[in-house]
Amino acid sequence: MKLSTLVKNHAVWMTTPGPYGDIVLTSRVRLARNLSGHRFPGWSEESGRKAVLEEVGPVVQALPEMSEGFFAELNELEARDKHFLVERHLISRELAARSSGCAAAVNRRQSLSVMVNEEDHLRLQSIQPGLNLRAAHAAADAVDTALEATLPWAFDPSLGYLTACPSNLGTGMRASAMLHLPALVLSGEIGRVVHAANKIGLAVRGFYGEGTESLGNLYQVSNQSTLGDPEEAILARIHKVIERIIENEKNARLKLLDENPSTVRDQVGRAYAILRHGYIIPSKEALNLVSMLRLGMDLGLLPPDEHGLIDTLLMDIQPAHLQFAAKSKLGAEERDILRAEILRRRLHSLPAPGTFPENAPEADDTP
Amino acid sequence: MKLSTLVKNHAVWMTTPGPYGDIVLTSRVRLARNLSGHRFPGWSEESGRKAVLEEVGPVVQALPEMSEGFFAELNELEARDKHFLVERHLISRELAARSSGCAAAVNRRQSLSVMVNEEDHLRLQSIQPGLNLRAAHAAADAVDTALEATLPWAFDPSLGYLTACPSNLGTGMRASAMLHLPALVLSGEIGRVVHAANKIGLAVRGFYGEGTESLGNLYQVSNQSTLGDPEEAILARIHKVIERIIENEKNARLKLLDENPSTVRDQVGRAYAILRHGYIIPSKEALNLVSMLRLGMDLGLLPPDEHGLIDTLLMDIQPAHLQFAAKSKLGAEERDILRAEILRRRLHSLPAPGTFPENAPEADDTP
Repeated sequence: MKLSTLVKNHAVWMTTPGPYGDIVLTSRVRLARNLSGHRFPGWSEESGRKAVLEEVGPVVQALPEMSEGFFAELNELEARDKHFLVERHLISRELAARSSGCAAAVNRRQSLSVMVNEEDHLRLQSIQPGLNLRAAHAAADAVDTALEATLPWAFDPSLGYLTACPSNLGTGMRASAMLHLPALVLSGEIGRVVHAANKIGLAVRGFYGEGTESLGNLYQVSNQSTLGDPEEAILARIHKVIERIIENEKNARLKLLDENPSTVRDQVGRAYAILRHGYIIPSKEALNLVSMLRLGMDLGLLPPDEHGLIDTLLMDIQPAHLQFAAKSKLGAEERDILRAEILRRRLHSLPAPGTFPENAPEADDTP
Repeated sequence: MKLSTLVKNHAVWMTTPGPYGDIVLTSRVRLARNLSGHRFPGWSEESGRKAVLEEVGPVVQALPEMSEGFFAELNELEARDKHFLVERHLISRELAARSSGCAAAVNRRQSLSVMVNEEDHLRLQSIQPGLNLRAAHAAADAVDTALEATLPWAFDPSLGYLTACPSNLGTGMRASAMLHLPALVLSGEIGRVVHAANKIGLAVRGFYGEGTESLGNLYQVSNQSTLGDPEEAILARIHKVIERIIENEKNARLKLLDENPSTVRDQVGRAYAILRHGYIIPSKEALNLVSMLRLGMDLGLLPPDEHGLIDTLLMDIQPAHLQFAAKSKLGAEERDILRAEILRRRLHSLPAPGTFPENAPEADDTP
């Protein structure tokens, strides 16, 4: 599959509804694996990385899951291609910064990806819609098992999988979910929730993972520790904490609706309005407005079955996505104009919050 | 006419189109007159003001123009009533601050008002739609002539009409026009225009006149000097300057459309959108958004024949107007909610900028 095909098709997890889909966009599991007998990528020369890629590349491409998939060495990709893959959460920003001897593989449905010579020799990643860490893990685990038949993993009976950074030692597993928490942000409770999650060993990060700020009220929750517990126990613990955060967000939404109904209607109404009628919309503003639209759906102010529309928009309004849509390089202002155009077009048939029939106490269509 | 009748009916100048109506909302002329043999109100006791009111009140009420009009002594009015009259530009903030011995008269069409014992014994005011200072002066002049038949004006052959403040000496005339100058504001040229007007003896002020800030890109231009020239010459001079400001604004609009079409569409689109879908809209924001809507009409992005809708909205979203609409006292947030409700309702049938057929290069209704 060419990159252009990947660009043209939405990832399956962007359009398929998943469990707790009103609050959890996606669940991801990634496994860090290294070959025995090779230095970790960061300690290796280009020749060493190439040797790993030569050993690993054919095996990865031969995986049944990767048939008709995408595979490229990083030096074959242009900057925009790499940005695109980062925006779609298929590769990390770290891999995007690398070049020859490093590679990325993505399956046809874009639910699985393999990074070669990122921080570790291999990083296997699986994405599922909604809160479904177990399914995400199962898919990554299946790839791991298939690769293991051919590739000699660096494994120590007492330490588990050996990794470049000790923070990944043991299971080599990082499980995360992308949560949409607008009511916790609006009510100012988000700080408390993040603090509580940190205290029990979970990291809470922004839209693009480590070191990035929260945009569009999206938060990525993941495990900090990979050592000492089997995968199932780690997954069960994160799942439980996320369920509690979901509960918090739901309560905050009810409280908002109860105590500040006009504020909610105003925020959702304005977001809808600006997205439908703006002509220059910067990226950050767009993410925050789309977030309010998603909240409006969850609160019954907008049709509830349009999460797919929202979540594909979140992807498609990003800079590299926009440039692929335009088939050309765009300056910041050109992107803001095209972003607004795409938002207007895609949201054209979405009814206004006030006119959605199921709840219109002050309907717009009263004369 | 009771105040409630006045509240219920729009002033004729709010709904009737006038010359240069795309840029000039109204023209006003007010004449300051004093009775000979009485101290000016500021130097007078309450008994002195009452004596003036007793002499003047019946004559004003007997004017044919004032038949079926509104008349009240200020102590008969509640705070909200006074605010309402100020918001509608029928009395000054100075008069609203006064009480017994001071009075206001308004004709049925709300195009003429007489203030008794404001800074001067009498202030006659006439309002016309658009740029029409001559018509506004003619109407005030007719009232002046009619009153003069009965009331002995304080007049000095060499100084002209005597007034409490020397800045009104001579003609006692202040002529002004309310201009909508969004493009000069957006382009940053407004400062230069105000400076140039000041240099040739005109004052440029905000929405509520002297000492108020500009809201909604509305500027009141008036003569500073009342002395030395006959009324016609003063009026002709202001008229000419205003025509030049109109020219400047029109050029600025063309330049904006030419150089920043997306910015204009964005501003107009967002304004339309927020006004149609907001649920909490503070006063200042509302004025600025409605201003953008008016600009959108003038630029052909919205139906051009809706100035009346816009200009009545500018009035009706003000605090005292809102409280009359609600028939109760409202707190600031309640007003912001009601303001948004009125805006949504009144603008409900206004088509979106993108869908207005005459110019929709990127029409909203493309699938």
